[in-house]
Amino acid sequence: MHIPMYFQENVTAFEALHRRMDRVLASGRTRFQNYVIFDSQGFGKVLVLDKDVQSTERDEFIYHETLVHPAMLLHPNPRSVLIVGGGEGATLREVLKHPSVERAVMVDIDDQLIEMAKKLLPEWHQGSFEDHRSEVVADDARAWMENHADTFDVILIDLTDPVGEDSPARMLYTVEFYDLVRSRLNEGGIMGMQAGMILLTHHHCHPVVHRTVRESFQHVATYQNYIPGFFLKFGFLLASPTIDPHSVPAASVQERIEQRGLALSHMTADYLGACLVLPKDVQDALDQETVVSRDASPFWLTESGAPGPG
Amino acid sequence: MHIPMYFQENVTAFEALHRRMDRVLASGRTRFQNYVIFDSQGFGKVLVLDKDVQSTERDEFIYHETLVHPAMLLHPNPRSVLIVGGGEGATLREVLKHPSVERAVMVDIDDQLIEMAKKLLPEWHQGSFEDHRSEVVADDARAWMENHADTFDVILIDLTDPVGEDSPARMLYTVEFYDLVRSRLNEGGIMGMQAGMILLTHHHCHPVVHRTVRESFQHVATYQNYIPGFFLKFGFLLASPTIDPHSVPAASVQERIEQRGLALSHMTADYLGACLVLPKDVQDALDQETVVSRDASPFWLTESGAPGPG
Amino acid sequence: MHIPMYFQENVTAFEALHRRMDRVLASGRTRFQNYVIFDSQGFGKVLVLDKDVQSTERDEFIYHETLVHPAMLLHPNPRSVLIVGGGEGATLREVLKHPSVERAVMVDIDDQLIEMAKKLLPEWHQGSFEDHRSEVVADDARAWMENHADTFDVILIDLTDPVGEDSPARMLYTVEFYDLVRSRLNEGGIMGMQAGMILLTHHHCHPVVHRTVRESFQHVATYQNYIPGFFLKFGFLLASPTIDPHSVPAASVQERIEQRGLALSHMTADYLGACLVLPKDVQDALDQETVVSRDASPFWLTESGAPGPG
Amino acid sequence: MHIPMYFQENVTAFEALHRRMDRVLASGRTRFQNYVIFDSQGFGKVLVLDKDVQSTERDEFIYHETLVHPAMLLHPNPRSVLIVGGGEGATLREVLKHPSVERAVMVDIDDQLIEMAKKLLPEWHQGSFEDHRSEVVADDARAWMENHADTFDVILIDLTDPVGEDSPARMLYTVEFYDLVRSRLNEGGIMGMQAGMILLTHHHCHPVVHRTVRESFQHVATYQNYIPGFFLKFGFLLASPTIDPHSVPAASVQERIEQRGLALSHMTADYLGACLVLPKDVQDALDQETVVSRDASPFWLTESGAPGPG
Repeated sequence: MHIPMYFQENVTAFEALHRRMDRVLASGRTRFQNYVIFDSQGFGKVLVLDKDVQSTERDEFIYHETLVHPAMLLHPNPRSVLIVGGGEGATLREVLKHPSVERAVMVDIDDQLIEMAKKLLPEWHQGSFEDHRSEVVADDARAWMENHADTFDVILIDLTDPVGEDSPARMLYTVEFYDLVRSRLNEGGIMGMQAGMILLTHHHCHPVVHRTVRESFQHVATYQNYIPGFFLKFGFLLASPTIDPHSVPAASVQERIEQRGLALSHMTADYLGACLVLPKDVQDALDQETVVSRDASPFWLTESGAPGPG
Repeated sequence: MHIPMYFQENVTAFEALHRRMDRVLASGRTRFQNYVIFDSQGFGKVLVLDKDVQSTERDEFIYHETLVHPAMLLHPNPRSVLIVGGGEGATLREVLKHPSVERAVMVDIDDQLIEMAKKLLPEWHQGSFEDHRSEVVADDARAWMENHADTFDVILIDLTDPVGEDSPARMLYTVEFYDLVRSRLNEGGIMGMQAGMILLTHHHCHPVVHRTVRESFQHVATYQNYIPGFFLKFGFLLASPTIDPHSVPAASVQERIEQRGLALSHMTADYLGACLVLPKDVQDALDQETVVSRDASPFWLTESGAPGPG
Repeated sequence: MHIPMYFQENVTAFEALHRRMDRVLASGRTRFQNYVIFDSQGFGKVLVLDKDVQSTERDEFIYHETLVHPAMLLHPNPRSVLIVGGGEGATLREVLKHPSVERAVMVDIDDQLIEMAKKLLPEWHQGSFEDHRSEVVADDARAWMENHADTFDVILIDLTDPVGEDSPARMLYTVEFYDLVRSRLNEGGIMGMQAGMILLTHHHCHPVVHRTVRESFQHVATYQNYIPGFFLKFGFLLASPTIDPHSVPAASVQERIEQRGLALSHMTADYLGACLVLPKDVQDALDQETVVSRDASPFWLTESGAPGPG
Repeated sequence: MHIPMYFQENVTAFEALHRRMDRVLASGRTRFQNYVIFDSQGFGKVLVLDKDVQSTERDEFIYHETLVHPAMLLHPNPRSVLIVGGGEGATLREVLKHPSVERAVMVDIDDQLIEMAKKLLPEWHQGSFEDHRSEVVADDARAWMENHADTFDVILIDLTDPVGEDSPARMLYTVEFYDLVRSRLNEGGIMGMQAGMILLTHHHCHPVVHRTVRESFQHVATYQNYIPGFFLKFGFLLASPTIDPHSVPAASVQERIEQRGLALSHMTADYLGACLVLPKDVQDALDQETVVSRDASPFWLTESGAPGPG
């Protein structure tokens, strides 16, 4: 006999996912967002921020390997890495697996979330906050970047979606922000980012992000992957002034995986190549998208996943 | 103001999807299964059979292009095709796009479903039932194949999952059934099939189907794709005594698409190649699976998606 | 195996009822409101108007006997009756059971609803629309009453709740409307009405209606009853310039039931007396209520059941 | 912005209530049952045991005043009281309001629940566990009564419904148990009990309990009340070898309320009289019920509220 408690996630404006919660470990509000951490039979521990599932214990390796390793592997020798967001520490954990890394700065606005993660989400960070190469900064990432001239080999963007007209995340999805990111890349650097769900039946969130990033970078590539814990396919982006993701052969990626001694559970060199190949309907949507998000009128999604009027 | 009617689909034993129904076009029961057809804002018309969404108007092209064209394109000259299941007629529609096809036999047990589809689901069949090359048979597919010695270049399996201990579909997921399929392939023939969701956090449905098919065929390849209307990634299988799907170059596939004049909206030669590349965790699950479904003890899923005790 | 379709009713802002629909008989929109008619195992046929269940086949006798007979029985000889609202015809059906009735005028704004009821809801009207004493008028009830000087022995108000800031029903819940009702009563006449759910934990809908009616009438009495199909206790009102409901002895009511040959399934003379007795918390809420709904600033409920800001 | 967590309660087999949880204060399992305590906007703190809401902070006074005071007030001088069940302490709290009480024994099987209530549910017990007249026993109530010859003026039964074929509560709903209760009443004693929801559209739970109690007692009276936090009308029973509840005039009850200095928020002498008057359909169901629950074949409800096959 189980306890019939459910977390209801409005995946779209018309479809909602009801997830059974076996035990609620924590729920409340930091200065910036609501949170729930619960145990589930299907996915283990689940982290929710502001109405959306962010990560689940059993499949977070898929999300984080997909976010981190493509950018890290396309760079021949990543020594400094900036993580924008990434509060629970798993993105940092994956970055630190690359032995060339000497400095990994993580800037997340929500210090209370980080503290909670340290205590309640050890499966995610696995001690990465304590690594001597890690610097954890509690600040608005855009403000921090504007105030610090530090540059990096790899910049990873691991943010919540820009949901809601007053979402602060909106200002981290504009051309002006991507210009700032580019200016903080070292020569030969590359950006990797989570870039919104791909659900073309419902909206064009990912194509807009893709189109916007193309304003700032010479080379931009979408790669996609299914994240089981979200029940959705997500778009990710690689962007660089110099590196063309499509021109790096799988053999080179494979060689780097071996040289760096990476033990991965999901991503392989061949699978990265596969993720970079898009079906026709997605490619068409990217090619035809015209909306660019700018500071003057930033793009945002309604709470239910539709694009806002802005 | 909308009418708050919902269709609840138990995607797993622990997660349920609530889909808003704007209008219920039909609901009831044929001799074999319950059905609902409803209109939705996200996916247009939606067809439900026995508790599970089978197809949606807006994304059925993704499912049906993924099911049909890989097998059809790997065969150099498919002239005769057998479709097992496929009641609403869209699989047949895609098959008939290949100009080499001279005969397409569709065997579905549920003649009432076919009649309903003819009237209520024209977006799916688009007249394919009336094509002079089509033969529609209302019969149990396994029984029909046992009673008919007809052989085919391509056999496509488009069935509901074997959900429930008394599901008749169970007997179409066993080694003995796949042996029968193989015996009904012409020299150089190939089988393509929908082979269960890939949700390794929850169960090993696809690995069991894959492992079982390997008992009957020399060459077996899993390919995967995300089906938006199901909010799930599905596994598909290609199986042949002679054709190795991994050895056919994308350039050949592309050439065939052009020669046959196929206008596809989702599948491309390159994307087919990408679908055949599996992430490490999925490949590991396939490699390690040991369960084989046999007539004496057929595999089945509980209604909630877990494997049954059998 | 059932089809998992649900109707979701937001009983309050915080609690929702999910009712299983076995079959949707009709759904759509008249010029005035959305509607759904579905079959359910618990309550039989269910009628929904604008998001709220209005009536169910198996318990509508409880609602309609509770609404109609108290006012009719407190009047010694009701010959003319006006029904405000009451579109599906069951209120009219109960009125016509009283043999003294010579004329029963029903004014409902929604003629399309009445037509649909004639066809799909025979269990409700049971032919009452065809009775020679019935006059069915499709009009705004307040406008009709302003334009017609006809007076009645009994006026019954059977409306949907004033949900939504733009609900037209709002103008039938104000002092000015109740003054109009009083002016259309014959000497010795009485008004009976459905007057909102009693759920004091959540809001004061019924106390506000009660308080407002008291502005217009000398004698006002709340009586309450549980309506199973709504899973709620509702308040009803009796109001009259001359009849004090608390002063009519049960024995007189019982005598009238017998004289009129009424065959009732729920209401009895004693039970009417019991419904007029209120628990202390409800009586206190009535005594302390100060809000009066007026044309200049009519009271309304949010869609979820909370009182609107007006 | 709220956190969309819900508690789903299957009110019947066909209707479920989804209650929004603002914060989960505790969830888990004692040796005997699952429990959840959560905060809600509509009802404040809510206590759930084994899938069913037991009590809510804002309306528990309605339930507990309805359960306790009728039996206590019908007895002219209750000095000793036995409470069967009642783990969170509010029944005990109401009993202790009667100044004649010298001894109040509460026997609840679940000592872990009692300990949790002491810490987390002070709004319920309000210190009643510490009263010098209270004796709290952690034991199976039937076993305790069989092993102890103590007799009481009033015995109050405050149990969960007999849901599930293996529910231990089943054995506290049989003729044999009620015979035991009668044997533990002092001369002139009376039993009061919560006796199941009244939802005749769905099942005959209350009529069966009523019919069963009539096997053991000379005088048995059903009284009913709506419990807002359950969204249901419940049946309660008064049973005594000597006291006929219908023959005690309201004036006497009122006199006792005043003599005992009871400050009640819901129950009044008149309202108790009103609760004892039943509508015709309920009275008919009681009169016609023939099922009696006996040890040899105890009555039980399925988890969804239907009567079990036994």
